[in-house]
Amino acid sequence: MATTDGKEIREGKTTQNNGRRMQYHRRPRQTQKAKVLEQNPAARNGKNAGQQRAPRRENRKNPVRIIPLGGLNEIGKNMTVFECCNDMFILDCGLAFPDMDMPGVDIVIPDFTYVENNKDRVRGIVLTHGHEDHIGGLAYLLKKINVPVYGTRLTLALVKGKLEEHGLANSVKLCEVQPRKTVRMGCMAVEFIKVNHSIPGAVGMAIHTPAGIIVHTGDFKVDFSPIDDEVIDLTRFGELGSRGVLALMADSTNAERMGFTRSERTVGDSFEKLFDRAAGKRIIIATFSSNIHRIQQIIDNAVRHKRKVAIFGRSMIHVIGTALELGYLRVPDGTIIDIDEMSRFPDERVVLITTGSQGEPMSALTRMAMNGHKKVTITPNDFIIISATPIPGNEKYVNRVVNELMRSGAEVIYEAMYEVHVSGHACQDELKLIQALTKPRYFIPVHGEYKHLAKHAQIAVSMGIPEERIIIGEIGNVIELDDQSIRVVSQVPAGRVMVDGLGVGDVGSIVLRDRKHLAQDGLIIVVIGIEKITNTVVSGPDIISRGFVYVRESEVLMEEARQVLLRTLDKCNSHDLREWGTLKMKLRDVLSEYIYGKTKRSPMILPIIMEV
Amino acid sequence: MATTDGKEIREGKTTQNNGRRMQYHRRPRQTQKAKVLEQNPAARNGKNAGQQRAPRRENRKNPVRIIPLGGLNEIGKNMTVFECCNDMFILDCGLAFPDMDMPGVDIVIPDFTYVENNKDRVRGIVLTHGHEDHIGGLAYLLKKINVPVYGTRLTLALVKGKLEEHGLANSVKLCEVQPRKTVRMGCMAVEFIKVNHSIPGAVGMAIHTPAGIIVHTGDFKVDFSPIDDEVIDLTRFGELGSRGVLALMADSTNAERMGFTRSERTVGDSFEKLFDRAAGKRIIIATFSSNIHRIQQIIDNAVRHKRKVAIFGRSMIHVIGTALELGYLRVPDGTIIDIDEMSRFPDERVVLITTGSQGEPMSALTRMAMNGHKKVTITPNDFIIISATPIPGNEKYVNRVVNELMRSGAEVIYEAMYEVHVSGHACQDELKLIQALTKPRYFIPVHGEYKHLAKHAQIAVSMGIPEERIIIGEIGNVIELDDQSIRVVSQVPAGRVMVDGLGVGDVGSIVLRDRKHLAQDGLIIVVIGIEKITNTVVSGPDIISRGFVYVRESEVLMEEARQVLLRTLDKCNSHDLREWGTLKMKLRDVLSEYIYGKTKRSPMILPIIMEV
Repeated sequence: MATTDGKEIREGKTTQNNGRRMQYHRRPRQTQKAKVLEQNPAARNGKNAGQQRAPRRENRKNPVRIIPLGGLNEIGKNMTVFECCNDMFILDCGLAFPDMDMPGVDIVIPDFTYVENNKDRVRGIVLTHGHEDHIGGLAYLLKKINVPVYGTRLTLALVKGKLEEHGLANSVKLCEVQPRKTVRMGCMAVEFIKVNHSIPGAVGMAIHTPAGIIVHTGDFKVDFSPIDDEVIDLTRFGELGSRGVLALMADSTNAERMGFTRSERTVGDSFEKLFDRAAGKRIIIATFSSNIHRIQQIIDNAVRHKRKVAIFGRSMIHVIGTALELGYLRVPDGTIIDIDEMSRFPDERVVLITTGSQGEPMSALTRMAMNGHKKVTITPNDFIIISATPIPGNEKYVNRVVNELMRSGAEVIYEAMYEVHVSGHACQDELKLIQALTKPRYFIPVHGEYKHLAKHAQIAVSMGIPEERIIIGEIGNVIELDDQSIRVVSQVPAGRVMVDGLGVGDVGSIVLRDRKHLAQDGLIIVVIGIEKITNTVVSGPDIISRGFVYVRESEVLMEEARQVLLRTLDKCNSHDLREWGTLKMKLRDVLSEYIYGKTKRSPMILPIIMEV
Repeated sequence: MATTDGKEIREGKTTQNNGRRMQYHRRPRQTQKAKVLEQNPAARNGKNAGQQRAPRRENRKNPVRIIPLGGLNEIGKNMTVFECCNDMFILDCGLAFPDMDMPGVDIVIPDFTYVENNKDRVRGIVLTHGHEDHIGGLAYLLKKINVPVYGTRLTLALVKGKLEEHGLANSVKLCEVQPRKTVRMGCMAVEFIKVNHSIPGAVGMAIHTPAGIIVHTGDFKVDFSPIDDEVIDLTRFGELGSRGVLALMADSTNAERMGFTRSERTVGDSFEKLFDRAAGKRIIIATFSSNIHRIQQIIDNAVRHKRKVAIFGRSMIHVIGTALELGYLRVPDGTIIDIDEMSRFPDERVVLITTGSQGEPMSALTRMAMNGHKKVTITPNDFIIISATPIPGNEKYVNRVVNELMRSGAEVIYEAMYEVHVSGHACQDELKLIQALTKPRYFIPVHGEYKHLAKHAQIAVSMGIPEERIIIGEIGNVIELDDQSIRVVSQVPAGRVMVDGLGVGDVGSIVLRDRKHLAQDGLIIVVIGIEKITNTVVSGPDIISRGFVYVRESEVLMEEARQVLLRTLDKCNSHDLREWGTLKMKLRDVLSEYIYGKTKRSPMILPIIMEV
């Protein structure tokens, strides 16, 4: 029942599963990799060569521990702790979007308990790229532990925006790192490696530890014709593979998809054709604000077709502004116009770039579709491209927007066949390529639901990694590995912490349960006044309801309910009326039974007794 | 605010849009079709030949009116009224499943106001097939108007089950109709025409009216190798086309998809391969209970592979029972076993057929996945096939089930590439085929969201139907047509009526708004006792909250809130304390502002004043 006063348990805090399907490396033996390491003593970046050259006996004493705190068996809130000896660092700190069973929750972040408890050992935070699911939890973490943050230029610029919102801009040290450069984290060193993804400045990491090299791909794809002309640094992955990679952690998002993810450039080709088809019309394109390369291609097409570009949506304006400032976008002067300038140009000379590709209710595109945008009214002379695919759960929102845009007479391009979107994640053949290059001893699939991780594990098996060297982990697992073995040795607190407004973690399972109960069947409040000396009912019972039934059409039901309560109270003697806990429970049970019998609904029932 | 006492408006009742994009047939002219009619005076079924032979002048006096009450610009609750002169009949009466903005609502049915207001003119209800979105609202309608119901055998058997649940089994006349047979509805006559769909016994309708023939496809596909060996009656559609079809109303569900929907038989081929692959394992297949042909193929494969079949899920057991009874399923004796018998057979000798292909939280498959099923525990020796694709909105539920099944070690086949599901609806080439056969004068796409209807209209245009002869309608439109013109002449009440428990229509926009508000941020109740003679506060303010914040961790916030209220009350003089409406509003505003400032949340605030 909703009114239980049980102890609130923070979601997931009690997770103790050490991995039902964990595989252990059972027979330690002399490894091929160890030999390779000895043949290549000179580490490329020098800094960690000492550790790399340490004799095998030493390695066994200094295993590395990998502790995923988010991103496994879920989409989002990616965060992983690496620790060795007394040193610890964090790779990414993202947010997740709330599930349908978390009404009212704004975002979900990882449980930082373990990191907080070890804050003195944390040497820093490294970031793979600037997407929310990798940096969205960072401000909350930095409020608890203030350590330097390392990332590429765009990533840090996006982080900076977030820190400003949280009033942390001046207190946090942001350190820019270029690909192929290395950051020291105590006895470990983290090398940044260029990868392709749907945002510029994405990197994977080679983590050089006393136990060996761990490669983490971050989110990646292999794009041989990227918009920024920088192909993922396959050479470096190969070099590391030649030196010997202890473990590979790789992006599992598209592990279910066969083949190769198409190049971002193919979207530009589609735009080219669609711009021709849209001649004479206004073009509106919705996409993710962080996909700077997509935006570059829209702008390039606009310039070629002599159109001006107007930007809509808070995050789109922010990210494009940042990208222009940092030189990630190349835009001829005079191409981008202010929203208010639009009216000076005819439809066929304008392209609108907007947020809202996921049908988000408050986004610019949704407001345009629902006739609620102050500056833009959709007409049959609009040609609208939704350059994205719906994230699972958003299909209905996107459909609603498409329907409304079409009802206004606009032509809407949203279907897969037009190829106006490509994924930012590697498909099976790319995953195999990375396996082939890095030739890891152990494999830990990351970034995905269980089904993605399991498919990715199968791919690794197909590439020759024995099953017992693959760990499908869970958040909170402490995965200890060296060149002898890999295993889950223990568990630390991990779970989801809900952020609602300014509250971080103050919404837990009981609050959510009450919200869901209230949403299902609403609420009935019963108010009674009891005279405290004589213990008699002097006022009420009065019934107030919300979200239960339209009261004006249910007067009979409500009056009958009052009579049921009155009869119950009549049966009470003055002793009963003193035992408020029991009395409340009795009133609740009686009313609940009556209401359910009449309506087959179970609203939350709150008896309130006022002493007078 | 949630406590507004505004007039409740039943959702959609006020819809007055006569169709923004309606197209009118502007230039009435002598038509090809009228001539054809005169050349073919002998109607096949004789009954309505008189009307068909009526001279053109007569036709113009007796237009037919089509009034869609559901199924346009939405998925589900299909219902259409046809009327001519003083006669009226209803085609289908389905339900829709609630949207995410309808918390607590069980199902949605059409608004029956128009039909109720004209109940004396309703000659009967014809049903195209037994899916919920075509028959699920029927019991509610029959409680308001008791008229005969016509359908094929399986459709009526499924209807009967529903009527029994509603205590209507003995009061409603169910009349079985075979394909190619005709039912008279006053001056109109309805001919049943066999179509293929994902349930046996599906028909389209030819509605013979004084104004001409209207063809309604119902839900359909063209399957040249159906499991029941009965191909859609293309010949009859063609004959009607030769005689002259006034208007075609056709299923738009797959109007976005190119090509031809694959035959149901191809799913059997996939099963064949997967049964081989699953040798030695238990097989569990989840599919829609109404897809008898799919179930037949599972059973056929089970028999061939010498496996017994056990049935799980209430609706699966019910529908298979009905289908066996009526001879729609052919099953060798001893094939189907009781759930409790399962343990007598080894895994490799068993197939489980279950509900839950949409990941429905209470379904048998979901309970198996979550380890909550009493009879079935998932193990690595299970081979599970989800023979369905997620309906938009269900993706996350299905994903969750797949993840959990895989975590138990089972092999799960759920991806499109395995071809374990085909649609029951016609794709673009089939839609063109029906257009080509029926050669309608007017076209009204039905059964779909706006985007589907619009695509379907484009297909009709590509087949040579002029745009002005196509109506993309809205529910409640009164579409009047004869061989001279088609147009929306007026509007009747139409919308969505929500069913929650036993309540039909008692949940409206205010109740839903309150439920959503409560779900978002919860509730704060403020209780105050006021002495009625002196007008002084004698008790409280007390604060009670639910779904807002975990109270034990927010004692400071709650105490401060109480102080804010106390200060407000202190400022009130006895006059203020008599004006309870104003006082409540003041307390609500003050508390709301305080809470929002502290938490950025806006819980529903309910001040309760008790007079003592």
